Amino acid sequence: MKLYWTPASPFVRKVMVVAIELGLDHRIDILPTYWPHNWGFQTVELEPDFMAASPVARIPTLVTDDGVAIVESNLIYDHLQSLNEAKALLPKPGKARWEALRILGIADGALEAMIARRAELLRNGVNQSDDFIDKLRARIGRCLDTLNAEVDSFEGPISLPQIAAGIACSYMDFRYVADDWRNGRPRLAAWHAAFAKRPSMMKTEAAETPQYGSAS
Amino acid sequence: MKLYWTPASPFVRKVMVVAIELGLDHRIDILPTYWPHNWGFQTVELEPDFMAASPVARIPTLVTDDGVAIVESNLIYDHLQSLNEAKALLPKPGKARWEALRILGIADGALEAMIARRAELLRNGVNQSDDFIDKLRARIGRCLDTLNAEVDSFEGPISLPQIAAGIACSYMDFRYVADDWRNGRPRLAAWHAAFAKRPSMMKTEAAETPQYGSAS
Repeated sequence: MKLYWTPASPFVRKVMVVAIELGLDHRIDILPTYWPHNWGFQTVELEPDFMAASPVARIPTLVTDDGVAIVESNLIYDHLQSLNEAKALLPKPGKARWEALRILGIADGALEAMIARRAELLRNGVNQSDDFIDKLRARIGRCLDTLNAEVDSFEGPISLPQIAAGIACSYMDFRYVADDWRNGRPRLAAWHAAFAKRPSMMKTEAAETPQYGSAS
Repeated sequence: MKLYWTPASPFVRKVMVVAIELGLDHRIDILPTYWPHNWGFQTVELEPDFMAASPVARIPTLVTDDGVAIVESNLIYDHLQSLNEAKALLPKPGKARWEALRILGIADGALEAMIARRAELLRNGVNQSDDFIDKLRARIGRCLDTLNAEVDSFEGPISLPQIAAGIACSYMDFRYVADDWRNGRPRLAAWHAAFAKRPSMMKTEAAETPQYGSAS
């Protein structure tokens, strides 16, 4: 398999942590992608092979061994899970699964808001809406409050919602330290402190995407 | 089950079409939600029961018969599919499924870009970025080009990717008529013309969300 990748993307990280937890990472070739900072508000030039794989022009994009390119992290999870069904990262149908889907949707919603906030900040003051940034900050806060309140529902064996929630917390540390997300959320903070020590999380720590023309 | 709903949301429509195709719509109570136009760039006041169900503050949100609120259309699909496994809207694991996931991801990516474009347009000129709107228009165009080129891969029995693709085309007619999406995409246009005649599509045609204070 091939994975279009950057070290800064939390949704790429989600795929990588899933792959490591399922023991599939050695089967994936990493294809770095480069994103000049105007990606936040303009179409940026990307490699033709990537654009053919992903007309959405987003990462993660995974190309299966059959040559099919899949462009969204939960859909990529579906493929990876099928390659190791013995280690299920979601419970079987039933209330535990619906609760897992709830947490997954809320953690993904928080992550999407963090990316949208990043894109708005990259406008660097040109047509930048403080109201919109406030809206996203409030959404992120509500989602993290809910994860804190419902942390009991996602403790237990490693799962896809845990991975999304753990990466959401880590991305706050990477991009939005000033939000002080641990403040008022002691249970989520304690859960995250342990989760972040998993080898799959340690191996995938976020880093800035290299910029064109920078020293390598 | 309960579904937080508006007639304008294409992702709500996706859930409704899935429910109708699976014969589950009679089991769902529709709970209308109201969105003043500043939702595009500000936190808007919503009912407390909805905010508790969805801290992301987005629709669709489905509350299962067990009382678990799920907040994203593909995750809601997972739940609904489990209630009627006899009529699978995705193929079993294998190349046909990966191709279905590819189309689903691209159609969803186009829909997300249409919603982000709508939100930007609702800024009504205040901090509104023409560059960002152009970026989204280009992304939508590439996704529709790919659906046109790959339409053979999603013909056949009704499926989740067909539903997402069909709704994406219909949403272009609802919000972005000037884009003339059929131009240069005759195969997608022909496929959509037939798909749009399904009873599940006819029963869920898009309409504006009623505004606070308007005559009902």
